[in-house]
Order: sequence, then C-alpha cells, then structure tokens
Amino acid sequence: MTDERTFGPLSSEECRRRLEGGSIGRVAWNTVDGPQVLPVTYAVHNDAVVFRTAAYGPLADLRHVRRVAFEIDEFDAETRTGWSVVVVGQSRAAAKAAELVELWSQADPVPWAPGTRNLFIEIRIDQLSGRSIGS
Amino acid sequence: MTDERTFGPLSSEECRRRLEGGSIGRVAWNTVDGPQVLPVTYAVHNDAVVFRTAAYGPLADLRHVRRVAFEIDEFDAETRTGWSVVVVGQSRAAAKAAELVELWSQADPVPWAPGTRNLFIEIRIDQLSGRSIGS
Repeated sequence: MTDERTFGPLSSEECRRRLEGGSIGRVAWNTVDGPQVLPVTYAVHNDAVVFRTAAYGPLADLRHVRRVAFEIDEFDAETRTGWSVVVVGQSRAAAKAAELVELWSQADPVPWAPGTRNLFIEIRIDQLSGRSIGS
Repeated sequence: MTDERTFGPLSSEECRRRLEGGSIGRVAWNTVDGPQVLPVTYAVHNDAVVFRTAAYGPLADLRHVRRVAFEIDEFDAETRTGWSVVVVGQSRAAAKAAELVELWSQADPVPWAPGTRNLFIEIRIDQLSGRSIGS
C-alpha cells in the first residue's frame, strides 16, 4: 500500500497570509517555572504579532524582552488534514504613546476575556515557518 | 454597561475529561535555539500524554527528560467563547518493551503525518490546569 499522505513546508508568503488571516494563537515561552503555553487573540501589526493582556496576569511577563514562539493552526479530524504556522521572535511591551495610538486605532486585537487588559505585547516576527499535512 | 463575559478556571476533573476527549494538542518546550511549539496528535495513557514522532525530527528532542507544557483548546470566534487546558510535566521516550506493547495496543495515537514515526514520547502529567471563557 502506498502512503499518499503529504507533509511539507508552507512558503513564507503562505505563512504570512495565514498569520494575518488568523485571530487566535498560542504563545509559548520559558518562565522561571519552566515552559508555558497560553492562547491569546491577536492581530498582526507591522512586523509583529500583537495582543492585549492584563498587567498582572502570567502573560504580563512578556512585557520584558523574552524569546517567544507563537503558533496558529487549523485541523480537521475527519480528513486528518491541517496546517500550522510558527513565529519565533522577541517580546516587548508597546510603551510609546505613538505606538499605542496606532495599535488601539488600527490593529486593536480585542481580548475575549473580561477585565482591564490594556497592556499591549508585541512579538517581533524574526522567523516564520509553517507546514501542512494532507492527502 | 455591565460586562457579562466570564473567565474562570476549570476543575481538575473537567480538565482531565477534556484532555482524554481530545486528539490534537501543542507541545511547547525550550530548545537550544529557544522556545518551540508544535502540534501533535496524542492519546492519554496512564498518567501521561503520549504521542508518536519521527526519530530524527525536532520533537525527538523530547526523548530526553525535558520540562514540557502541552496545550489543547477549542474556540468559537463567532460567540467568542472557548476553553484551554494545559499540562505541565516531564518528557521521556517510552523504551521498555512492555510499555511499547501496551502503547501500541491500547493507546496508539496515530500520527497524521506520513513516514516512520515509531518513537513514542510520554509527557508525565505533573500539573493540569484549564480555563474557560464565555458569556
């Protein structure tokens, strides 16, 4: 029996397109307690993934410069097909007034969670890769 | 206007139930090149998340004991509701013959990607937490 399933990389244009089209991803980074991974709603602004979080939650750690991996994906269990895109980059808080005005007005990634979530974190897109799996 | 959206923890029973009912999750860990996060198909066996991978791929690094975070989630963009569950634990390769027989026969988490993927990685469930977001 031949294995007709495919597994291969996505082009960087395709990765970028999917990243810009998405709204939910997972942020992974190394905390003092080890690896952590949490979902966020995001937007792409300039060359960064941007999300809003609470000033005192676990994600607020990313206001500091940290190495971060950010993942989006889509899978279909029935056809066993899907794809994922991973960004690797550095985090930081958007702190300058001009940046914040731009982020609020143009890229505002609305958090689904209630409460005050006005800390904007940016993950600079240093590396972008993706893969798809299908038949 | 009152904010009627809710955001709160899931009980550990609920986390376990969702973990056992799932089939795709994302493994996050710290590599020599920084944080990485990749999706896998998995099964729960005894007190571990188990998946199969290729002996020479990036996930093969987890045959060694590493601290790992493993995440599953489900979101609905329309209603802006969803949940996520995160496992924190240690990875290792299942190497003993008896373990492998059990894993192949009982818990076999079938990889969607083609090729030989017969390295079984276990993530021991040391911590289990989850949260849901809804209205």
